[in-house]
Amino acid sequence: MTTQELTQQILKKQSFLCIGLDVDIHKIPKHLLQESDPIFAFNKAIIDATHHLCVAYKPNTAFYEAYGLKGWQALEKTINYLNENHPDIFTIADAKRGDIGNTSSMYAKAFFEDLAFDSVTVAPYMGKDSVEPFLAFKNKHTILLALTSNEGAFDFQTKQVAGVELYKQVLETSKTWAHSENLMYVVGATKADYFAEIRKIIPNNFLLVPGVGAQGGKLKDVCKYGMAANVGLLVNSSRGIIYASNTANFAEAAAQKAREMQQEMSYILKHVD
Amino acid sequence: MTTQELTQQILKKQSFLCIGLDVDIHKIPKHLLQESDPIFAFNKAIIDATHHLCVAYKPNTAFYEAYGLKGWQALEKTINYLNENHPDIFTIADAKRGDIGNTSSMYAKAFFEDLAFDSVTVAPYMGKDSVEPFLAFKNKHTILLALTSNEGAFDFQTKQVAGVELYKQVLETSKTWAHSENLMYVVGATKADYFAEIRKIIPNNFLLVPGVGAQGGKLKDVCKYGMAANVGLLVNSSRGIIYASNTANFAEAAAQKAREMQQEMSYILKHVD
Repeated sequence: MTTQELTQQILKKQSFLCIGLDVDIHKIPKHLLQESDPIFAFNKAIIDATHHLCVAYKPNTAFYEAYGLKGWQALEKTINYLNENHPDIFTIADAKRGDIGNTSSMYAKAFFEDLAFDSVTVAPYMGKDSVEPFLAFKNKHTILLALTSNEGAFDFQTKQVAGVELYKQVLETSKTWAHSENLMYVVGATKADYFAEIRKIIPNNFLLVPGVGAQGGKLKDVCKYGMAANVGLLVNSSRGIIYASNTANFAEAAAQKAREMQQEMSYILKHVD
Repeated sequence: MTTQELTQQILKKQSFLCIGLDVDIHKIPKHLLQESDPIFAFNKAIIDATHHLCVAYKPNTAFYEAYGLKGWQALEKTINYLNENHPDIFTIADAKRGDIGNTSSMYAKAFFEDLAFDSVTVAPYMGKDSVEPFLAFKNKHTILLALTSNEGAFDFQTKQVAGVELYKQVLETSKTWAHSENLMYVVGATKADYFAEIRKIIPNNFLLVPGVGAQGGKLKDVCKYGMAANVGLLVNSSRGIIYASNTANFAEAAAQKAREMQQEMSYILKHVD
């Protein structure tokens, strides 16, 4: 999917919502545990109930790896289900990978070719040759960690490097890499103040924004400073949507939460400057 | 495994060699492709031929993820084979993971409990709460990326942060985290000059040193500046050993390369100050 197509989907659905499929077997409704693949059964129900309200799904690979082979099987089934039934949905493997060149190529192959995700999250610490193998894939997107939504973001990311915070160095430096047009960035919503600064460096790149739900960020603030001409925002909610209820009606409850966010987004899209 | 036991193994085997099991299906001997699980068949042959010459094995997860479910199955079989047949060998999941707290916990569970690795490599960019969930596991080891062996290391890691290089900030800051006694660090051998500086900050932590083979680092220089009282070094070689030959004799050829490194290490262990 191209970023132009992503923007079209956002305008069509009046939503820039991304739903995080972080499935914890201890939190899903108990009746699903009788299914042959409870994780996929949960994801399928969530997707069926919410696909018209969001533009992206983001499984975090940690939650699948934690269940070993069965987890990976559930991840494969989930991405296949999305690609077959909802090709207009943008898919994000939240994997936070990154390694030396030939090894990053293997990760890129795994997520872009074999699993056929549209994008993958990547950590910047190892620099250019750890990220460029991901960027080389046409119409695939590399979502680089810039400013994350956790407390630990202040350990290194906001420390000054030659007078500029590390996360800004990451933004500036990554702009110079080959195929940087395929870059998006993770920017935590708990730090809405930073969005204006970030847009000075990267006016148009899409930002994947976690932390609007459970982690406390505010949607309006994010949009005020972070929205670009192409919208340029994917706002993620995971637990706040998928665990809205753990009864038999969990999927409807999730859809209700997603609808609330979609309606707020629609209002913002119509009223933003 | 404790670090004391690791040092005992090093002294007993006169080797601090780690063999990287980075299996690329295009590089292994063709006759193995007839096996039901060529990747595991390759690893088993390499392990059978080299286990007395090394103290650690390090599968890089990228190479397994690239083959989807079959790859994860091969990874599981490899770690199970090691744990059942060679419990004295230190095992490293070279996964370079790292995420917000509850997600890092899932990764820690995946690698330490389900797969039962002794250690996992972790990226520091997201800071304290992304690493501490790994550190919480007793007698398990978190190998934090400090200074990597690739060109991209100079993009951010060696940049000055408040007058000190970022990788040194990572060393200093991580020392203050809960259960920091479970920390080891990745330090690339292509930068032997840095080892003396690093040992001023972390005199005793084990260092996992890639880049001695294919990437051009020199073993003697690494040991001169990097060796600690408890040895404190695991020197990794992947391609230089496992792809020494792609004929029917590949395992013997790998053992020969491993033996050359072990002999050099034995000499250094006997003659180091």
